[in-house]
Amino acid sequence: MSTFSFSLLHKDPKSQARRGRIETRRGVIETPVFMPVGTQATVKGMRPEDLLTAGAQIILGNTYHLYLRPGHTLIEKLGGLHRFMNWEKPILTDSGGFQVFSLGALRKISEEGVRFQSHLDGSKHMLTPELSIAIQQSLDADIVMAFDECIPYPSERRYVENSTALSGRWARRCRDAFDTSRGAALFGIVQGGMHPDLRAASAEELQEIGFDGYAVGGLSVGEEAELMYGMMECTMPLLPEDRPRYVMGVGTPENLIEGVRRGVDMFDCVMPTRNARNGVLFTSFGKISIKQARYREDEGPIDPTCSCNVCRSYSRAYLRHLYQSHEILASMLNTQHNLHYYLSLMANARAAIAQGRFTAFAQEFYRLRQTGGDGDTI
Amino acid sequence: MSTFSFSLLHKDPKSQARRGRIETRRGVIETPVFMPVGTQATVKGMRPEDLLTAGAQIILGNTYHLYLRPGHTLIEKLGGLHRFMNWEKPILTDSGGFQVFSLGALRKISEEGVRFQSHLDGSKHMLTPELSIAIQQSLDADIVMAFDECIPYPSERRYVENSTALSGRWARRCRDAFDTSRGAALFGIVQGGMHPDLRAASAEELQEIGFDGYAVGGLSVGEEAELMYGMMECTMPLLPEDRPRYVMGVGTPENLIEGVRRGVDMFDCVMPTRNARNGVLFTSFGKISIKQARYREDEGPIDPTCSCNVCRSYSRAYLRHLYQSHEILASMLNTQHNLHYYLSLMANARAAIAQGRFTAFAQEFYRLRQTGGDGDTI
Repeated sequence: MSTFSFSLLHKDPKSQARRGRIETRRGVIETPVFMPVGTQATVKGMRPEDLLTAGAQIILGNTYHLYLRPGHTLIEKLGGLHRFMNWEKPILTDSGGFQVFSLGALRKISEEGVRFQSHLDGSKHMLTPELSIAIQQSLDADIVMAFDECIPYPSERRYVENSTALSGRWARRCRDAFDTSRGAALFGIVQGGMHPDLRAASAEELQEIGFDGYAVGGLSVGEEAELMYGMMECTMPLLPEDRPRYVMGVGTPENLIEGVRRGVDMFDCVMPTRNARNGVLFTSFGKISIKQARYREDEGPIDPTCSCNVCRSYSRAYLRHLYQSHEILASMLNTQHNLHYYLSLMANARAAIAQGRFTAFAQEFYRLRQTGGDGDTI
Repeated sequence: MSTFSFSLLHKDPKSQARRGRIETRRGVIETPVFMPVGTQATVKGMRPEDLLTAGAQIILGNTYHLYLRPGHTLIEKLGGLHRFMNWEKPILTDSGGFQVFSLGALRKISEEGVRFQSHLDGSKHMLTPELSIAIQQSLDADIVMAFDECIPYPSERRYVENSTALSGRWARRCRDAFDTSRGAALFGIVQGGMHPDLRAASAEELQEIGFDGYAVGGLSVGEEAELMYGMMECTMPLLPEDRPRYVMGVGTPENLIEGVRRGVDMFDCVMPTRNARNGVLFTSFGKISIKQARYREDEGPIDPTCSCNVCRSYSRAYLRHLYQSHEILASMLNTQHNLHYYLSLMANARAAIAQGRFTAFAQEFYRLRQTGGDGDTI
């Protein structure tokens, strides 16, 4: 009874890039798409209307954080995550696995699931595939992610084999626990570390189980960019063409372009929002750090080619002043600009694919970065 | 050559409340008016467009802070404070005196002015009446404040006499230093501590010098509310009816109502913005602290009678969650609501005065507070 569907609209003639459309019960998502991260029921520094202005079509929520605070049962009681945070468009929730595994000494894995201690108050919890699905469905996510282990890099092959097999068994339990009657979608997550054969086996197993979409997990975990691109390249062709493909936790603008080139439809990353709060801004000619003294008297906008409200209204000198003065408005404006950059990059990629000129678009993307703008990219 | 003027539109029949209109080179200000404080070239947590939505007609800038960082010469070079911070409506700047005097051991007063050390880097500076005016005019303020000493409370009468006399001499130097050709206005500041006779002498001296408007300084410095009201009551009748009257650094909603009742036209205070960041919210039935556990599952808005976007879109439960999670959005939404509350209170007071029913309006204001809303006012 899923109201979820994916249509492949255009294929780029010279690459694997795809232009698609996901339909959900909460509206349409044009792909390739970047999804801003809203960890604690808010994309930091952005109101929902600001996200719409920036062009967000879907945002992420974090199961681990919302489970601990304010609690998924509270959010369910208050009408679900959308109503709670005043966001009407689709929400994808992660499974909580990534955060739980990041807890290090505070967690212990077993066949059943993962025991962990809260980073907030040290309280003890057990996260299982069934509970992860239940939490995500309490939140009323439109896209629910299977619970898996994000394998550290580097890892022994034997560890990767065992972990991928466990994630496979958990994926089946997620599929069984998932309530299809509510119209949400369930995505499986391909693991397998940096081993193409294990990636292939994982992709095959997940398709046997059957999911509404397929994610690739365990990338952007410290490996070289070329290795990550290699993993995308070998995994994408193994996934069904008629389902959306999502590479989790990726990445830089370059990573997005290279992912799109290899057939990825969906991305998420804290990079534009976190960097914004640290004064690092994305531009068509690379990143700049707004705190640098060279911007002290700079009357120009962050990026002269950018059409966002921040670039139309504020100078680098003002943004530097706000950052140096630890003003809330620094985080607000920087985040607004960075998300506009990421979301526009994807909008432009979509237009390029539709017109069969993605390769030329990517070339121009790199050419502008080589010019280095004012020579101050970092 | 001042393009500044004040028209008295209505006088309340049963009180001293006045409904007026200030015209400046950057547009009209309807009075009584509350002015949000934008210390470091930003009203914390608010974009200029958010200020307009909340109903702000004029904001404050802080001379001391902007002089130290980023520097008034830089702001002048970049086209003035309005352009720097993207705010086109009027700006009033304080003289820097209040902050400098707050530095305690780091400052020393003489006839010439005040020597002080920067709270940012310990660098040494001398602020004089002439420099204060020059800084404010570099910033291109629409209303410039005379440089004076804000007298601590309590103080010996002798100290108050000497300080008020010094502020009088400084006021004359400010008048002389002020460049009238740019169309800005210069306000004098009545001192005199809590002594009606010294207040009267100060008010008389300032009128001899002649200013475009008159402020009352040295209130809300720790004295009882009744004493503050008493000072307003004895000072207002001594000021010219055809000039705006401004009580500096005041105050609570109750202080504003009592000031308006006594003939005050202008107010400023960090209370709505600072309290917002601490989770304290103003409502028609009093203040509430959003962090309280009782709001954990509260689906209602901050104030059911409030028409602001925050009250229309978010529950107390969500706002509590944001506050508990230290989210930037907590400060943003809380500030938006609190400023809407303050600015609406003044808009409603203006309407009441125009209709000759200010006393009834004030009565209703207090009645609602006594009902205590949900009984949880603080």
